[in-house]
Amino acid sequence: MNLDIITIGDEILIGQIVDTNSAWMAQKLNDEGINVREIISISDDPEHIVETFTESAKKVQLVLVTGGLGPTRDDKTKDTICDFFNTRLVSDPTVLQNIEDLLNKRGIALNRLNQDQALVPENSRVFQNKLGTAPGLLLEKNGCTYIFMPGVPFEMKYLMEFEVIPFLRNNFQTSTIYHKTVLTQGLPESMLAEKISDWEDGLPTHIKLAYLPSPQGVRLRLSARGMEQSKMETEVAELIAGLQKLIAANIYGFNEESPAASIGKILKSKGLTISTAESCTGGALAALFTENPGSSDYFKGGVVAYSNEVKINLLDIDEELILIHGAVSREVVEKMALHACKLMKTDLAVATSGIAGPGGGTPEKPVGTVWVAVACQGSVVSQLYNFGSDRDRNITRTGQNALFMIRKLLITL
Amino acid sequence: MNLDIITIGDEILIGQIVDTNSAWMAQKLNDEGINVREIISISDDPEHIVETFTESAKKVQLVLVTGGLGPTRDDKTKDTICDFFNTRLVSDPTVLQNIEDLLNKRGIALNRLNQDQALVPENSRVFQNKLGTAPGLLLEKNGCTYIFMPGVPFEMKYLMEFEVIPFLRNNFQTSTIYHKTVLTQGLPESMLAEKISDWEDGLPTHIKLAYLPSPQGVRLRLSARGMEQSKMETEVAELIAGLQKLIAANIYGFNEESPAASIGKILKSKGLTISTAESCTGGALAALFTENPGSSDYFKGGVVAYSNEVKINLLDIDEELILIHGAVSREVVEKMALHACKLMKTDLAVATSGIAGPGGGTPEKPVGTVWVAVACQGSVVSQLYNFGSDRDRNITRTGQNALFMIRKLLITL
Repeated sequence: MNLDIITIGDEILIGQIVDTNSAWMAQKLNDEGINVREIISISDDPEHIVETFTESAKKVQLVLVTGGLGPTRDDKTKDTICDFFNTRLVSDPTVLQNIEDLLNKRGIALNRLNQDQALVPENSRVFQNKLGTAPGLLLEKNGCTYIFMPGVPFEMKYLMEFEVIPFLRNNFQTSTIYHKTVLTQGLPESMLAEKISDWEDGLPTHIKLAYLPSPQGVRLRLSARGMEQSKMETEVAELIAGLQKLIAANIYGFNEESPAASIGKILKSKGLTISTAESCTGGALAALFTENPGSSDYFKGGVVAYSNEVKINLLDIDEELILIHGAVSREVVEKMALHACKLMKTDLAVATSGIAGPGGGTPEKPVGTVWVAVACQGSVVSQLYNFGSDRDRNITRTGQNALFMIRKLLITL
Repeated sequence: MNLDIITIGDEILIGQIVDTNSAWMAQKLNDEGINVREIISISDDPEHIVETFTESAKKVQLVLVTGGLGPTRDDKTKDTICDFFNTRLVSDPTVLQNIEDLLNKRGIALNRLNQDQALVPENSRVFQNKLGTAPGLLLEKNGCTYIFMPGVPFEMKYLMEFEVIPFLRNNFQTSTIYHKTVLTQGLPESMLAEKISDWEDGLPTHIKLAYLPSPQGVRLRLSARGMEQSKMETEVAELIAGLQKLIAANIYGFNEESPAASIGKILKSKGLTISTAESCTGGALAALFTENPGSSDYFKGGVVAYSNEVKINLLDIDEELILIHGAVSREVVEKMALHACKLMKTDLAVATSGIAGPGGGTPEKPVGTVWVAVACQGSVVSQLYNFGSDRDRNITRTGQNALFMIRKLLITL
């Protein structure tokens, strides 16, 4: 089944807020095998609202609408709804009771504005919103069902989970879709595509492949449709096994996992610890580890050795080594990693040193020149990268490539 | 002028990614006085693409399209574009050269897929994309202009800033809008609104105020419309001077500046240096400093003392102090800051220690308990925070509050 999501409100159209609601709804609907045909953000303008409702009804039998039902501009959208569905507003006693209960809890007396919030279109089905004053509403016109929800994310989520999705399950035919995403690192999109092109050509027609590039690497999403859940799971698992044979070293996880979280899992399972010694990534690499719950099990600490003085004093790097080779060099970055291991008593350590830009480049070492080293139980590997001119990107790519190097090393242990 | 933004790609419709591009674009367009009529997310399906293009052309003279231009075969958009605009693909030598240059830098050989990326519709205007392999494209049909950009955020942003917006300025009638954003920290939205309510009531009708909450604090955007640029600038400057009188301590900058960049400016102007000693922020606070170009002028380094062992060995914290007070305590965090100053020979140091969650909380010190200390030339100030239960939010809020404490201290020096 197909549906449209319509978001009403100027704040998205002027870029004041990012529409995170639609993605959340789309994911939940997808889990139910419901296909989102279009996501449309429009203004509060009544004419625009009516036009969009009318257009969607030509294509889908179900429309989910968020926004436009808050306490301030409430009236406008509700009036538009009444015009469109050819009905009028009536006070709903259950909604009014809910509003009174909510306000009582906060010690606030009911005012006129709140009383108006209990007004709903006469022929609508009401979904009670226990977390807020604006209820969910369902109306029908010309064979299309419209469900209205408030735009406040936690209220919308409550209504979706406890009212709307159960209603859809009972009242609509939903097909089954099964997604699995393979997370890869270390191969640019075009090289990855070349490596797996025969495998891709052999995919059955009911399974679709999508390439989704992200700062963490390219994600490969397989989507199966229209079969029994267990059959799709088996078939996708078999296809992924085939993929593993081609790019085993580049697959770091599945679905939503981050590269650092996946490394954390391996470290924990092997009882190993890690530390960081960062120059050009300036703390960002340590932050990739520590953003994961439970990272203190394997991440012990790090040194952000941004100045040469800190490299010398805290990481015990020989000043002469820096004078001879420069701070951005194999020699220095390898010592940084080895010394971090010793200093923080960890099994592994990763070190970065590079020219993130925009300043600091030389003809020999232009902006984007980066050395990364990974030390492990006394030995060390290192690699030179030549990234681009964008500072943010250089920091991100250094971090992600460092994680890829750690992973490669870890799977050999 | 009105335009539509169309986003092509299944990943938004299945909720795999949140569409942050459209909000960013909408904000930039708004700054140019261009109104976004609708934001529409659709699938890769050619029929759906053509239908949406056709519908938009009935309403607007300009359509910005992102997504669907990657190197792999799930991007069928180029063929669809050719059909729609009744043209064919030809290889563009400048695009091909750019692709070769980009790949050379990364030490990758050109493959067939990359060559195909240099194919552009014959009658299109090409915007060179220096940061990626897919160029921007401009085509026209029935009086409507369509501009295509890749969906990768940093590539889209590059094309918008350096190609598309300059093009729009030269070729379309844009009304004059002047925006200035006042960046505040340390006051929640509702308290801020209360403090400045008289000032807000006194705003002239041609100047609008918007509250834009963000993880860094609340941004107040003033938008003036329909007057001479110089007159708007003067009037907004006068209004901001009035605002300064009310919330001087909370204003850390203007427009796009980050709190850490603004602190960096002050440090540099005063010839001061800073270092970090982080437990719960795990490198994220150092990264806030080092993401700014030129940060090596004032940021010397940091220690991520995630484990107690690293606190003891690297930051020279007395083990007994941790045993008596716990690692999350005023006593420990103050010593962390003071020792970081000494160790890294900086004028200031900032230290964090807290329970980010989800694990590690106790009845006495629940998840969200955080201590922050700022040391400056031998003395130290510290503060206890009680944040919520969300790990990411706790790390972000600790970092932002630490920056606010540094700023407060700096302006007294």
